[in-house]
Amino acid sequence: MSFRRVLAAGVAAGLMLAAAGASAGPLAGFTAENAARQQALEAQFDKALSGEEMKGWLETLSSEPNHVGSPHDKANADLMLAKFKSWGWDARIETFEILYPTPVAEKLELLGPHPFTAALHETPVDGDRTSGRTATALPPYVAYQGDGDVTADIVYVNYGMPEDYKALERLGVSVKGKIVLARYGAGWRGLKPQLAEEHGAVGCLIFSDPADDGYATDDVWPKGGQRPPQGVQRGSVQKMMIYAGDPLTPGVGATKDARRLTRETATTILKIPALPISYADAQPFLEAMGGPLAPRSFRGALPITYRVGGAGAASAHLLVKSDWSLKPIYDVIAVMKGKEFPDQWVVRGNHHDGWVFGATDPLSGNVVLMEEAKAIGTLAKSGWRPKRTLVYASWDAEEPGLIGSTEWAEAHGAELQKKAVAYVNSDSNERGFLNAEGSHSLQTLVNQVAADVTDPETGVSVAERRRARAQVNGARPGAADAVKAEAEIAAKGGELPLAPLGSGSDYSAFIQHLGVASIDLGYGGEGEMGGVYHSIYDSYDHYLRYGDPDFRYEVALAQTAGRIMLRLADADTPPLRLEPVSAAITRYLKEVKQLVEKAKADDLQFATLTATKAFALADDPTRPTHPPTAETAVGPLDFTAMDTASQRLARATTAFDSAYAASVGHLSKTQQAALEPVMSGLEQALTAPEGLPGRPWFHHMIYAPGMLTGYGAKTLPGIREAIESRRWAEAQAYIGVVARTLDGYSSRLEQTTAALPAK
Amino acid sequence: MSFRRVLAAGVAAGLMLAAAGASAGPLAGFTAENAARQQALEAQFDKALSGEEMKGWLETLSSEPNHVGSPHDKANADLMLAKFKSWGWDARIETFEILYPTPVAEKLELLGPHPFTAALHETPVDGDRTSGRTATALPPYVAYQGDGDVTADIVYVNYGMPEDYKALERLGVSVKGKIVLARYGAGWRGLKPQLAEEHGAVGCLIFSDPADDGYATDDVWPKGGQRPPQGVQRGSVQKMMIYAGDPLTPGVGATKDARRLTRETATTILKIPALPISYADAQPFLEAMGGPLAPRSFRGALPITYRVGGAGAASAHLLVKSDWSLKPIYDVIAVMKGKEFPDQWVVRGNHHDGWVFGATDPLSGNVVLMEEAKAIGTLAKSGWRPKRTLVYASWDAEEPGLIGSTEWAEAHGAELQKKAVAYVNSDSNERGFLNAEGSHSLQTLVNQVAADVTDPETGVSVAERRRARAQVNGARPGAADAVKAEAEIAAKGGELPLAPLGSGSDYSAFIQHLGVASIDLGYGGEGEMGGVYHSIYDSYDHYLRYGDPDFRYEVALAQTAGRIMLRLADADTPPLRLEPVSAAITRYLKEVKQLVEKAKADDLQFATLTATKAFALADDPTRPTHPPTAETAVGPLDFTAMDTASQRLARATTAFDSAYAASVGHLSKTQQAALEPVMSGLEQALTAPEGLPGRPWFHHMIYAPGMLTGYGAKTLPGIREAIESRRWAEAQAYIGVVARTLDGYSSRLEQTTAALPAK
Repeated sequence: MSFRRVLAAGVAAGLMLAAAGASAGPLAGFTAENAARQQALEAQFDKALSGEEMKGWLETLSSEPNHVGSPHDKANADLMLAKFKSWGWDARIETFEILYPTPVAEKLELLGPHPFTAALHETPVDGDRTSGRTATALPPYVAYQGDGDVTADIVYVNYGMPEDYKALERLGVSVKGKIVLARYGAGWRGLKPQLAEEHGAVGCLIFSDPADDGYATDDVWPKGGQRPPQGVQRGSVQKMMIYAGDPLTPGVGATKDARRLTRETATTILKIPALPISYADAQPFLEAMGGPLAPRSFRGALPITYRVGGAGAASAHLLVKSDWSLKPIYDVIAVMKGKEFPDQWVVRGNHHDGWVFGATDPLSGNVVLMEEAKAIGTLAKSGWRPKRTLVYASWDAEEPGLIGSTEWAEAHGAELQKKAVAYVNSDSNERGFLNAEGSHSLQTLVNQVAADVTDPETGVSVAERRRARAQVNGARPGAADAVKAEAEIAAKGGELPLAPLGSGSDYSAFIQHLGVASIDLGYGGEGEMGGVYHSIYDSYDHYLRYGDPDFRYEVALAQTAGRIMLRLADADTPPLRLEPVSAAITRYLKEVKQLVEKAKADDLQFATLTATKAFALADDPTRPTHPPTAETAVGPLDFTAMDTASQRLARATTAFDSAYAASVGHLSKTQQAALEPVMSGLEQALTAPEGLPGRPWFHHMIYAPGMLTGYGAKTLPGIREAIESRRWAEAQAYIGVVARTLDGYSSRLEQTTAALPAK
Repeated sequence: MSFRRVLAAGVAAGLMLAAAGASAGPLAGFTAENAARQQALEAQFDKALSGEEMKGWLETLSSEPNHVGSPHDKANADLMLAKFKSWGWDARIETFEILYPTPVAEKLELLGPHPFTAALHETPVDGDRTSGRTATALPPYVAYQGDGDVTADIVYVNYGMPEDYKALERLGVSVKGKIVLARYGAGWRGLKPQLAEEHGAVGCLIFSDPADDGYATDDVWPKGGQRPPQGVQRGSVQKMMIYAGDPLTPGVGATKDARRLTRETATTILKIPALPISYADAQPFLEAMGGPLAPRSFRGALPITYRVGGAGAASAHLLVKSDWSLKPIYDVIAVMKGKEFPDQWVVRGNHHDGWVFGATDPLSGNVVLMEEAKAIGTLAKSGWRPKRTLVYASWDAEEPGLIGSTEWAEAHGAELQKKAVAYVNSDSNERGFLNAEGSHSLQTLVNQVAADVTDPETGVSVAERRRARAQVNGARPGAADAVKAEAEIAAKGGELPLAPLGSGSDYSAFIQHLGVASIDLGYGGEGEMGGVYHSIYDSYDHYLRYGDPDFRYEVALAQTAGRIMLRLADADTPPLRLEPVSAAITRYLKEVKQLVEKAKADDLQFATLTATKAFALADDPTRPTHPPTAETAVGPLDFTAMDTASQRLARATTAFDSAYAASVGHLSKTQQAALEPVMSGLEQALTAPEGLPGRPWFHHMIYAPGMLTGYGAKTLPGIREAIESRRWAEAQAYIGVVARTLDGYSSRLEQTTAALPAK
């Protein structure tokens, strides 16, 4: 489902990485001799990769609808199982039973003088061979909405984000008892019905406005690659920022006999009905609306005057009814045992379920994972074996809520926390730039790999190309400070920081629940998956024209993820470097302090504006607005604990990195064996058992999906989100929790450093 | 024609003013005793003002098309002449003979597979009683385009501004030999065909995109106030930034026997044909275009994918033919002689010609000028007489090129330079906020007056309301630094700086050619004149609904401009204060220095990006772009002369203001008589005889319309525009010219200060 990543690449806000020049120095974690051997192995690995092969698999896997529970989804799992086995892997299918609602009735009508019934249907188009093959497909819907049959006035809420409700409040428009109409964009889909529900709405429609996703962006499918008028974005609206996975089994694997919540007691399921619709279906509703003129930020690209409604001008009838039975899901798990450290696992995953045909999302990534497994099988057949154990997994049920990966991670949680060195994820993949996000202990590894993979379009390394782009983005007029900072690092050829992980693909349970160091990888920014994202038009034919027509970026992703897996598996010592962890945390701490200063300045400004009645005096009395409401004043916050902890962390990581790098090749077998679990367990020292406020499933204290961003990451989330929502006592409490966590991490590093042999 | 001002108000970038609190202190230029007398006079003046009367005049004056040369325009002049006389003024009509082209044939066709003939016609609509009364109206056109009959491919150039041509160059699209299609906005209309011509285009179409001017902004006329699909913005495309007025008589009055250039030798007339069109007419052309996808900044609100064309996909046939004969124009001039200083003139002006009915532009301002003259007549009938002479002028032919005012100013140039204390201009006027721009020597006067006029909608002073708005705008996320700076001044209750004058209304010849201190005044920001600007729908009916329905802002403008006129006429000493002049110049000097620093930083960045091939590497090879071309490197610039001159100016203004304020009421008749011409001539000391580079008609060294903004002001234009265009030798030369000019100004102040009686 990782559309966010593609978007981020598009605007260059995403992560960024690039390497400190070609890897002239030794590979992290390898002796010079073993580094040379590893590079030879990687060359052999590359030779086994075939774009044509991936193309064939993609066509097969995307030939029929393959959503959770569909026959073709199961057939795909079976096909992969056979393939993994044929490549020499120890493979199996693990099954879980999950709550997965599927629509059985949907209706949407505009009432009043110009009645209209929404089509709620995507029609076949020429040039897209599977677009007529929808007999086994589900109609457009959003999973885990609340079902219902409601008739009410409609209110247009723009993107349906918190600032949009503030704007509506200033216009005196409430959504209480109304059906909201929100457009896709600005924040995660699931937040739209959730915030609507919290504001008292009785239903929610979500449409793709052509300004963001349609003709305004380029020609539409099949003339071009963008969303056609009848195209609908499906998706999950499960509250995954509370916990991911099966809503009925938080924290445990959804095995046949697991203890289950009921649908009513599961906190991640919405209460109100919601439907996604096309812009062709949305336009009559928007045209019928009265009420105040929509603020400028609410305007889309339909040829109408956008108004916010709420004045009784337009009312709608919305019905959604679903089958709420349990359905089986199929995770394909393939293992290649390590010869030296079999209990150290390097895990790789990509999901195989789509919303309809899922050619780009997720199968473009899934065939890469298969290709890596095949190439590794080839290496194995020539006698090589990994030092550490490799686990390749093709997850089911990612789309409804990261379910296949989460249930597996929960079912094997204790074992993973003991054994997993890292989790490497991918999802959709297209032409363009390498995007990588993840644990900062892996930043150096990712930068070194990116310097060793050649970009198919330009012939330079993918790191260098990414650096070029960072520089060009930083040179744009009005570039944000963060973008400019990255451009500066890029211009100097430095190691560019990884962006933090939020959510939106299968790494969540690994990094945020279990504390397994994780990386998410993919190429993008030149393809056009956005235009068909989660619609029936995300097809093989579309991918051939607008994804990665000659499968060269599919090969590039296999080279990138494959190298990361092979280096993690074969390094003399796990290739972690921790100064980037300290640097990231220092940066994040500075940011949250700036948030507080900003809040104080805002308070002061607001007080002045209120005292001078400026809001009222600046108003046009024929379009009156309410002045903004005052927010909770900034409370006292003491950052001393965090300051002290982050300074200790900086010292600890510097000392550790130096001693650790010096120890490579100088450790006895016993020393090495003792070090292995310490290193794989390190990321867990960044978690706290109590988890985040209101969502104890999320243990990681540095990275989390934002409660009000959905996919987008929040760093130091316990502190940052409390400040953003002006819960000052909670912010102070989490300054303590995070500082204590960092101290634990530093303490572990200090002990390990002391135990390493002196240089 | 002053739409720019309305726009500026809309985005709050405009000037800004507000007062230093209520005018508790003495009025500038008055003894305390005379200040009280003056305020009593102003109260009497207010009593004579009538909104109903202005409403009646507006209906009559806008009842028929009143463009230059139309019978109704002449009838309006005759009507005003009779009115002025009846109010006791010494009134006359002054006539000039000007080149004024009027269209005799127009044609626009889309050729190719989907042929289309543009309507080029605005249809009558219900609820707009004059919209069918167009028998004597001209069809939509732009005055002083070049005529022609051309057939060529079309290229969409966005706003047709320099940065748009840079974007097209990066896409590899040239307009050479093509017809360009530009949308209104971002820069003055006349720059669009001019830049098109300079880039080799053979024709130019200008349309109103609904994103900027149509349904995207609000409901369209007559349902709402915004531009309907068939609405067209007429206007002048004369190169007024070279010189204003009749193209055939630069620098001299266009009297019957004046020496004239030919049309071919006049440098302000374009060579290529151009037409303004509606968005209904533009859409088929935009839809037919091929070529690269338009960059994001090029996208408007039509329901299409915007492309830039140029690939032979769409070609057009454009024909424009005009009657280029001379036409007579009629300036109405009314004089009330001053009893103490008859040779000191305070001049007030507003134009009376419109593009069609011209209800808002210009008649809403013109009836205010009439109302002021009537009220002053009432004061005169009760025995009062101004100390200095009042001149009220209703100009003709402003729309084609500020012609009536410019020819009059040129014809009477020597006399005006000897006698004119100040020129006070207005144009369109609507509900909203006071906008004032002008000479900084008048800043204190304007601020004091704004504190004494009550805002009709809120009951606070118009200064306080303006301050409220400045604060609210400054609090917006992402507010520009200048907006924030103004908000800060506003929050402290300080005197807000006047914005500088560019062009777009009748003050140009006074301030920029003759060096007469000038002010432009108007209310706006809540009306919707923009939606009907320069179309047949700028009607009395539209003004009654969307301009100033109860004529309270018409009264407010009369109170504002009237007070300024009366204080200038009656003050013991002319109410100038010069510290604001020095403050403004200091601010502008800082800005131009920052431009140089910015240019240096840009050069450095560009060099890095070029060295690393970043542009090429960041490109999508399926949508290749050319890297930006290098600009002339920043040359050495020595600002010492300006630094020294501005420091001397600061000292001179402070000393002068203090001595001048102390002298009020302490001057003998002889001293006062000697001081008067010094004060009225002061602004001329800010001019230089050589004028600006390439446009010697523009003498003012501090304010000018920008060569590449058209209406928008450039301050320290000789220096600033040279820097912006990277002509370093010219920049250095003008640092010298401006410094010398400032030294002359300071020297005059120093002498005057020395001559004033000691405190």
